[in-house]
Amino acid sequence: MTSRDGYQWTPQAGLTQGVPSLGVISPPTNIKDTNEPWDVIVIGGGYCGLTATRDLTVAGFKTLLLEARDRIGGRSWSSNIDGYPYEMGGTWVHWHQAHVWREITRYKMSNALTPSFNFTHGVNHFQLRTSPNASVSTYMTHEAEDDLLRTALHKLTNVDGNNGRTILPFPHDVFHVPEFREYDNMSYADRISQIQDELSPNERATLEAFILLCSGGKLENSSFGEFLHWWAMSGYTYQGCMDCLISYKFRDGQSAFARQFWNEALGTGRLGYVFDCPVASVSDGDGDGSGSDVRVTARDGRVHAAKRVICTIPLNVLSGIRFSPPLSAIRASAAQAGHVNMCTKVHAEVDNQAMRSWTGITYPFNKLCYAIGDGTTPVGNTHLVCFGTDANHLQPEEDVRETLKAVGELAPGAFEVKMLVFHNWVKDEFAKGAWFFSRPGMVSDCLEGLRERHGGVVFANSDWALGWRSFIDGAIEEGTRAARMVVEELRPERGVRACL
Amino acid sequence: MTSRDGYQWTPQAGLTQGVPSLGVISPPTNIKDTNEPWDVIVIGGGYCGLTATRDLTVAGFKTLLLEARDRIGGRSWSSNIDGYPYEMGGTWVHWHQAHVWREITRYKMSNALTPSFNFTHGVNHFQLRTSPNASVSTYMTHEAEDDLLRTALHKLTNVDGNNGRTILPFPHDVFHVPEFREYDNMSYADRISQIQDELSPNERATLEAFILLCSGGKLENSSFGEFLHWWAMSGYTYQGCMDCLISYKFRDGQSAFARQFWNEALGTGRLGYVFDCPVASVSDGDGDGSGSDVRVTARDGRVHAAKRVICTIPLNVLSGIRFSPPLSAIRASAAQAGHVNMCTKVHAEVDNQAMRSWTGITYPFNKLCYAIGDGTTPVGNTHLVCFGTDANHLQPEEDVRETLKAVGELAPGAFEVKMLVFHNWVKDEFAKGAWFFSRPGMVSDCLEGLRERHGGVVFANSDWALGWRSFIDGAIEEGTRAARMVVEELRPERGVRACL
Repeated sequence: MTSRDGYQWTPQAGLTQGVPSLGVISPPTNIKDTNEPWDVIVIGGGYCGLTATRDLTVAGFKTLLLEARDRIGGRSWSSNIDGYPYEMGGTWVHWHQAHVWREITRYKMSNALTPSFNFTHGVNHFQLRTSPNASVSTYMTHEAEDDLLRTALHKLTNVDGNNGRTILPFPHDVFHVPEFREYDNMSYADRISQIQDELSPNERATLEAFILLCSGGKLENSSFGEFLHWWAMSGYTYQGCMDCLISYKFRDGQSAFARQFWNEALGTGRLGYVFDCPVASVSDGDGDGSGSDVRVTARDGRVHAAKRVICTIPLNVLSGIRFSPPLSAIRASAAQAGHVNMCTKVHAEVDNQAMRSWTGITYPFNKLCYAIGDGTTPVGNTHLVCFGTDANHLQPEEDVRETLKAVGELAPGAFEVKMLVFHNWVKDEFAKGAWFFSRPGMVSDCLEGLRERHGGVVFANSDWALGWRSFIDGAIEEGTRAARMVVEELRPERGVRACL
Repeated sequence: MTSRDGYQWTPQAGLTQGVPSLGVISPPTNIKDTNEPWDVIVIGGGYCGLTATRDLTVAGFKTLLLEARDRIGGRSWSSNIDGYPYEMGGTWVHWHQAHVWREITRYKMSNALTPSFNFTHGVNHFQLRTSPNASVSTYMTHEAEDDLLRTALHKLTNVDGNNGRTILPFPHDVFHVPEFREYDNMSYADRISQIQDELSPNERATLEAFILLCSGGKLENSSFGEFLHWWAMSGYTYQGCMDCLISYKFRDGQSAFARQFWNEALGTGRLGYVFDCPVASVSDGDGDGSGSDVRVTARDGRVHAAKRVICTIPLNVLSGIRFSPPLSAIRASAAQAGHVNMCTKVHAEVDNQAMRSWTGITYPFNKLCYAIGDGTTPVGNTHLVCFGTDANHLQPEEDVRETLKAVGELAPGAFEVKMLVFHNWVKDEFAKGAWFFSRPGMVSDCLEGLRERHGGVVFANSDWALGWRSFIDGAIEEGTRAARMVVEELRPERGVRACL
């Protein structure tokens, strides 16, 4: 099946919109008017919504999933093109990510991973270029690349003489040490100005490119505390970061994993769903969560009702939905400000097999600043995954020549591009950005408020998870939380089917 | 409530059996004869059985939990004495342990942890003694202790020039690289003989004490591969090991956590239970798992029947139950051989407040070889947790003077013991050992067979988990697996309560 989402470019066909994905659901709905009302409506079929839907249906609740797109997965989905999976959004997982790993094990997929990096052959080096002059690349071994970034990251994160362990001892309880707020309030730029005299030019360029890869934002608008939180979640080490953030992916792509949640929920016989169904408004009768129905109106005017609604709409598009009663002041202001991640992710199939073991940074001049050899396609070409950020932003479908130029700048003269595949998350009306990344002070000011109940509506999204916020893991954490809350509330209301 | 399990000793009262615990369930049963038959019977109320019971009851299945003891938790439980929790068995958890952390987050307990180590004051050093001569202790800073053990562990684990990453790249898929079997077949002693020329005497003593602390066995009968598996699960680093294995515990004790699973299952109205109910035999009508009832006979002669049985009995006591049809040859031989962990764990309340920041190794001469300051009791004494292994075995209740002597040897003259608290897992008829630790070759030979179906009986236990085998995490992994298998099987059999 082909999704409306995503773009593909080849020299032969040019740019086309829509790429094939296992995540497309057909037919797009399975409900009848007689199915109303529902126990629960889940808005959004990303991992958060899928998890909530699965947990609710397994627990016996009649659940309606409404999804604006034609596919499951939200900001994580894969396109399978000519037998090779391209990750359009969230990609990497690790056994140190509790929620996603629990599901990987539960769905017997712990042997379904493959490494992204493969430093065994060919162009087996790291290429660093900080100037548009193509002749000034620095080449180094991957061991030297590790040393460079390790050293720089330790300088960045060692705010307490203990690699961040003292200031952030329990990352899920982020203000356990209240002084952490100071770092949450700092931007990347603020922190770098503190350590700039300790950084060599190569360290600084590599560090900035890496942390911008994490935030997708700019040095001035990305929270240093949020990066420290990733660091703590990763075990306070460079190696932990590399392992958790960018090392292991699904051999057959994310959408094969998302399908597991979907199939389990569908198998209960309690899942209703409507795809291609953007939501216009959510209205909660009296807003006290006491059991009166919540009504969800789709853009096409159709109204669905349920005892509870779990709304998994991302922060950056939340203000496009009308809520009655209106969003709390904190939630409204956070949604208005939005998170900063305007990441550009572009896959390039290149005709140089030897690039499989290559990594590169072209920063700050290039619109794609970080790339790695991520696989070998069935015909033997190398798959490069390339990232740009809001610091030097690229809309990859607007001018493909510009995109091709940015890919080419990564390793001038080393390859020809055979195909591009990407999803422009920034212009996606249901995302308006990539994974969450906090502005300075946003976690301090808004995290608690974003997690609060809103009458009969529970807001759940990786954007305000406690642990791996922004990650697939955080989405599952949040879907789990929301479903449990609703199950515990509705069980007494519907009467326990006691058997004892 | 006071459990029959555990021992307490004070100078005033001497040795008494049974200690108070939040895990004791009263009344010990809630079922009537009219409740028969059940959808599922779960044998064993440790974390594996609790997880399976919770998942089954939440999914709508009428479930009977049979537990030999008077309490939940199995090999992980805490005793609360004078307002202070002592962990009688499994203790430490970390956010890099997927299954247990998922539950900690789900039960909103991610802010309920406390660190074991506290290196801030008093006797803030590591004390190493390798000879019974009390005057030859070596004292060093905790930084030096870290350096010593880090160096030694890297020598131990660096079998591939890549810190174990090459030989064990996917620890949940343990034979992904088939050559890993070579290391699984090696004992600790085998591996140490390979690297002995690289180890200083202090490195060797510290290393041996630490890895024996992990296995609870002897150098000759503990699998080196099993330790490599822990190492890989921890992220292939010393710091990862320390973080995952021994750093964070529940402020209020394990039993407060186990209660969460219990309360959720009970809240569904679908949980029947009988405590003080050791099982004598399990009989599966035709052994094909086709839906005919499985019968479980308790030692008191009472028979319970269900469509499926989830048996969570630990490996070392499995051969004490009669199964019909009989256990597979692999399962029977693994149960007969047993795992090697004969750990002795003794808590000592000592009258020296300054010992809070102390750690020590007394090896090989002492019957307690590894100890750390683990907390401060309400009256201001230090709580030391002390470990012995089968390499120099102690039955702590047999001769309390011998136990007190072994505690005293840890830091001669530094304190008086005000209280001892312990559970003798080796003599416990429902455990016959502590957490699982593999003999050389046991994982190669038996892991797959231990995970196989047995007609209508699903065997599930941390002892044969794929990930954090031996840990609370592995118990939850296995309970999750078993429940899902049974739910998927029974759902079509009972007819889906479809609502669409």
